[in-house]
Amino acid sequence: MSAPHASRFGDPSRPAVVALGGGHGLSASLSALRLMTDRITAVVTVADDGGSSGRLREELGVLPPGDLRMALSALCDDSEWGRTWRDLLQHRFSSDGPLDRHSVGNLLIVALWELFGDTVEGLDLVGRLLGARGRVLPMASVPLRIEADVVGPAGERDVVRGQTHVATTGWRIAQLRLDPVDPPACPEAVDAVREADWVVLGPGSWYTSVLPHLLVPALRAALLETTARVVVVLNLTPDDETAGMRAVDHLAVLRAHAPELPVHAVVADPASVEDVDELADLCATMGAQLLVRQVRRGDQSAVHDPLRLAAALRDVVEDYLGDVGTRTGR
Amino acid sequence: MSAPHASRFGDPSRPAVVALGGGHGLSASLSALRLMTDRITAVVTVADDGGSSGRLREELGVLPPGDLRMALSALCDDSEWGRTWRDLLQHRFSSDGPLDRHSVGNLLIVALWELFGDTVEGLDLVGRLLGARGRVLPMASVPLRIEADVVGPAGERDVVRGQTHVATTGWRIAQLRLDPVDPPACPEAVDAVREADWVVLGPGSWYTSVLPHLLVPALRAALLETTARVVVVLNLTPDDETAGMRAVDHLAVLRAHAPELPVHAVVADPASVEDVDELADLCATMGAQLLVRQVRRGDQSAVHDPLRLAAALRDVVEDYLGDVGTRTGR
Repeated sequence: MSAPHASRFGDPSRPAVVALGGGHGLSASLSALRLMTDRITAVVTVADDGGSSGRLREELGVLPPGDLRMALSALCDDSEWGRTWRDLLQHRFSSDGPLDRHSVGNLLIVALWELFGDTVEGLDLVGRLLGARGRVLPMASVPLRIEADVVGPAGERDVVRGQTHVATTGWRIAQLRLDPVDPPACPEAVDAVREADWVVLGPGSWYTSVLPHLLVPALRAALLETTARVVVVLNLTPDDETAGMRAVDHLAVLRAHAPELPVHAVVADPASVEDVDELADLCATMGAQLLVRQVRRGDQSAVHDPLRLAAALRDVVEDYLGDVGTRTGR
Repeated sequence: MSAPHASRFGDPSRPAVVALGGGHGLSASLSALRLMTDRITAVVTVADDGGSSGRLREELGVLPPGDLRMALSALCDDSEWGRTWRDLLQHRFSSDGPLDRHSVGNLLIVALWELFGDTVEGLDLVGRLLGARGRVLPMASVPLRIEADVVGPAGERDVVRGQTHVATTGWRIAQLRLDPVDPPACPEAVDAVREADWVVLGPGSWYTSVLPHLLVPALRAALLETTARVVVVLNLTPDDETAGMRAVDHLAVLRAHAPELPVHAVVADPASVEDVDELADLCATMGAQLLVRQVRRGDQSAVHDPLRLAAALRDVVEDYLGDVGTRTGR
């Protein structure tokens, strides 16, 4: 059963965009990108070991489905049918028994994997069910474990294992690793990166949702080699794993993990940038255009506004097209 | 979100048929009926207390979904999409943990009930997902428990409670009851019976899937008052709950539970009828036409063949139309 490959079969006049991330951050970028294009491929972290996903991973030995489910939900067709199935996917059981807190979408996705024996085919079918405005793929074909070398307040060192523990460590994360260290990338995800016009990194949990993509060798190679332009969307607030880190520190950490990665644009919200000159300097060093735009909600809560983020991303794309036009004479 | 009411919105030149039953027996009648008409309403027992359904009923306090799921699956669209979702609904997890043997379709149906707060709306949506050739409804709006007075080999008497226990009692079932004794019928099921051209009872577990419909007061009243013709499809073999009973005994038990029910036709397989004269006599007493036709598979296994059962049911319908033509001069 064939499913549309978003970057190939969407409206060819729109840009083909790959969004890298996981969890609520990826949902935010997808909610914005769907306003710009229907040629979207989400490439999702598969290192979650908590909640319903963690229990399914443990009981059935499958990829953690939760972040994939959230990405699919963010891309659902804006119709009664699409929204109903999205709500069903996002529904969680509530009981005193073993189904408590299990997500229905997680169970459905895992069942399709078992039925098809194929991760991508199962995700594509859920995408068809939802009328999804794009495609959702795992960044790797096997479940991953995230490990981090962390540094305590007195300089003491430790190793933290598992996404849940890394995400909630109070200590500074000095180095990130995946277990296995050389996981197989999802081939369709690698192809999507190579064929994309744009790649969007972030927002999201910086160490556990955004940076892990750079640690999957084939995906990293594709990111370094693709002709796509790379946009980094910075977070609105630090979370547990980036406590104390400023906007510029997030970008510096990304650069430290992938110095060769060309970054073409950085999108930041003015209320989330402590020192705009310092951030602008780092962007200039990296050769990236800096866009400081309000991308948060009007109520100033630390949540990306899909319309404002879409407008900022459109500005990035149009600026680039303008540049190209000037440079190439088109 | 509206779903087609099968008996109203199917091809009006085809008969509107209500099939009563549960489990594999109901799947057999639906697999045949779908070859004759798209105006099908399945009305399904909701007394199951075993397996995945029993666990869901226990943990979440819902109707047992299993027989409803099987009926929906039997009506799925004969396309790659319909068959894929049917296979997904029928898929069961297999693990050493709490999901083991849970049916994916059961989980999906229950989740839709929780999401909508409405049993029929949830079932209709699964029907739309499958492109189902008809509608599937519960016979009652609340979970039921089946109780039976049973008689042992030495004439000793006992009471057995719960569908699983009743279905596997080795003793003769003398009297069947529901708990609660006066359950609310599903209103849409009552309407379907009142508006039907034909009602099909059986095949299926006689005491635990076929007869319970006659014990739901509003459904029983509709069956006695409808202008629909009633066809009884007898089983191919006795099972645990009807051990030792002949074809004629099945019909006699049905009559004993609903003496006023008009039965217009009885379909039996010749290899399953021990004494055809005795069965014909009882049918004549009841005013029912008896059709003895091969309705089992060509390999003689005790499974109804959808094509042969459809042919027999079509003969019943055409005979009646011929009769009406003669009698009314049309």
